[in-house]
Amino acid sequence: MTIRSPLAPDRFPDLPAIPGVTLRIARAQYKAWDRCDLTYIELATGTTVAGVFTQSLCPSSEVELGREQVKGGTARALIVNAGNSNAFTGFRGRDAVEGIQHQVADHLSCAAAQVFVSSTGVIGVPLPMDKARAGVAAALTAAPATWEEAAATITTTDTFAKGASASAMIGGTRVNVAGVVKGSGMIAPDMATMRGYIFTDAAVHPALLQAMLIQASGGTFNAITVDSDTSTSDTVLLFATGAAGHPVLTDWDSPGADALYAAVHAVALELAQLVVRDGEGAAKFITICVTGAVSDASAKRIALSIANSPLVKTAIAGEDANWGRVVMAVGKAGEPADRDRLSIRFGDTQVAKDGLPVDGYDEAPVAAHLKTQDIRIGADLGLGDGRATVWTCDLTHGYISINADYRS
Amino acid sequence: MTIRSPLAPDRFPDLPAIPGVTLRIARAQYKAWDRCDLTYIELATGTTVAGVFTQSLCPSSEVELGREQVKGGTARALIVNAGNSNAFTGFRGRDAVEGIQHQVADHLSCAAAQVFVSSTGVIGVPLPMDKARAGVAAALTAAPATWEEAAATITTTDTFAKGASASAMIGGTRVNVAGVVKGSGMIAPDMATMRGYIFTDAAVHPALLQAMLIQASGGTFNAITVDSDTSTSDTVLLFATGAAGHPVLTDWDSPGADALYAAVHAVALELAQLVVRDGEGAAKFITICVTGAVSDASAKRIALSIANSPLVKTAIAGEDANWGRVVMAVGKAGEPADRDRLSIRFGDTQVAKDGLPVDGYDEAPVAAHLKTQDIRIGADLGLGDGRATVWTCDLTHGYISINADYRS
Repeated sequence: MTIRSPLAPDRFPDLPAIPGVTLRIARAQYKAWDRCDLTYIELATGTTVAGVFTQSLCPSSEVELGREQVKGGTARALIVNAGNSNAFTGFRGRDAVEGIQHQVADHLSCAAAQVFVSSTGVIGVPLPMDKARAGVAAALTAAPATWEEAAATITTTDTFAKGASASAMIGGTRVNVAGVVKGSGMIAPDMATMRGYIFTDAAVHPALLQAMLIQASGGTFNAITVDSDTSTSDTVLLFATGAAGHPVLTDWDSPGADALYAAVHAVALELAQLVVRDGEGAAKFITICVTGAVSDASAKRIALSIANSPLVKTAIAGEDANWGRVVMAVGKAGEPADRDRLSIRFGDTQVAKDGLPVDGYDEAPVAAHLKTQDIRIGADLGLGDGRATVWTCDLTHGYISINADYRS
Repeated sequence: MTIRSPLAPDRFPDLPAIPGVTLRIARAQYKAWDRCDLTYIELATGTTVAGVFTQSLCPSSEVELGREQVKGGTARALIVNAGNSNAFTGFRGRDAVEGIQHQVADHLSCAAAQVFVSSTGVIGVPLPMDKARAGVAAALTAAPATWEEAAATITTTDTFAKGASASAMIGGTRVNVAGVVKGSGMIAPDMATMRGYIFTDAAVHPALLQAMLIQASGGTFNAITVDSDTSTSDTVLLFATGAAGHPVLTDWDSPGADALYAAVHAVALELAQLVVRDGEGAAKFITICVTGAVSDASAKRIALSIANSPLVKTAIAGEDANWGRVVMAVGKAGEPADRDRLSIRFGDTQVAKDGLPVDGYDEAPVAAHLKTQDIRIGADLGLGDGRATVWTCDLTHGYISINADYRS
């Protein structure tokens, strides 16, 4: 990995073991590197699965297959290839994925559709099937690995391994939720992407698990942006092994469903924010909170317009209290807005209110806030109760160096 | 001005005088600089006007007033302030504009609504009325200026003055069209914006003039992007003095209307492309042509998705034939697309076809093309007849330096 992001946490967290989940890693050597790049996660019989995928209309074979597989509701294994995204590779890409599925299914004596495959890395190069076959063979019989080892193995250009966990009480049973994630949006030299994998020993019906994942993603994975570029392969999968042994949660009214959802949401939020903290070239972690919009959906579109604006992101990089750029980003969002009701806040300081700079505006506290690593921008539309929060990072020379100075 | 863009033309073109148009410039000193920053353009009685304005929902007072004024259809003067955009300044901003209008209207004995005002520069600071008043007074009586002087006076952070002209035959009468433009999208340290002003001595009914400007803008000013950020004040005005003396053009069927439209379109296109050539930090001029989409509108949204992608723009900056990023940008556009019918072209070289890298793809001609200054990217969707072309520039360290390293 390259130099660790200045926004990275001090160390990888202690994640609990999840009964029913066994991690194994191997070297497929998809690129000319000397590191593990193939992760095999074995899941106990009876594991249910939920998934959310990229909205890209040019998705990878893995995403196309994954969407179908999630409908089946059960999973026995997850294979993650790092270094090759296998995207835009036509039938050859699909053959490679199906080859891996059958190899693992033969080993586990399960259906091929219960084997989930993700690939991340360079686009347009079919996954080399010989390397995949040898790597999978090695992984199937490898010794169990730690969460940190697995989290590192799924990375490509990430600068640190990312994981998070939470727990919940379901009746009298404590269940754990643990997850790992890689990427930082569409950020890497060869189209790295975001992949998140969350595991719990809770027992959950697939339909409820899917509902939980969709709801949790809205304010977490779908509320972050690094550079506005949507990958062809973004995937988040949530697996529930059921090993904790409590009665299966079947709907939102099942006792403990709310607690489990809260834990899943907490893990999803932490993982999503870790992705932003590893944004390419990121030096500032930015929280954008939009209130007073006509609806939550409108607030979110406005918040993302601010978060994706190169001029807002470069102003923060420059520690410049250029709130006019926030006004600009609100104005271009295409959502209901009234210039004369708009208020802007940097940190705890109101800088503009009701369409005018605040009288006697003192830039000193804003300048002090902008020198910190965690920046907060607030925009109140003054129109309704709609609100949304999104997270992003600044746009720096580091981003340009990683994406332009690089030659494939 | 700072260092001239490497994409700038060698010199300012020779623009013809437009009978009925008199240019004058003055020093209002809106900023601490020693240069002319106030342009006064006097228009003959009977001049008709058309205008297109920013889609921003947080526009400046000048834009709000301008939209109303255009409905009147006639103009006697244009004032352009450089160095202060007067945007997000509430009633104080509006007072400043109306003050200028009345000062000029008194001088010309015309209606205040016939005096158009544009302002460009820092946002959130009301235009200083004393400086405006003195500047306008000086400009009203200044000696006539050249096109190049006026084009330079309307600039803010532009690195070169921009102008273009064309001519057309209307019946037996030759008419000229000349225009100037400033800005490069939402590109400057303090929210500089795009302003374009086009003048002709043709005689055109305001409704037809407006129709011509709207139609011409679609494939020109509205088909360029530097950084995806939409300014609060973008404005293009088209003035027709009628001094050429031919019968007034009243609709598209009027003899010569097509020829005049072609000239207006040619000037608009050249001005729009000059804006891209002065994009902040630009080192490459990029033409993106999308074909085979389900409609022209769909093609344009896909083309803009490619043009606005930071990863595509940084790849071009790095002279990197990373066509996977083009696939990504097509996929995220939200428009109908089928991965397995998509073809990508760099310069004259097909790199991917029908969802796969081209067999035996030779990167050498692509690499040679990417070393040039004028880059062409083609994407064929293989779905229909929709097509669109847009223009943009690359994303370089220069953009970050200008927008982040700067401190207001």
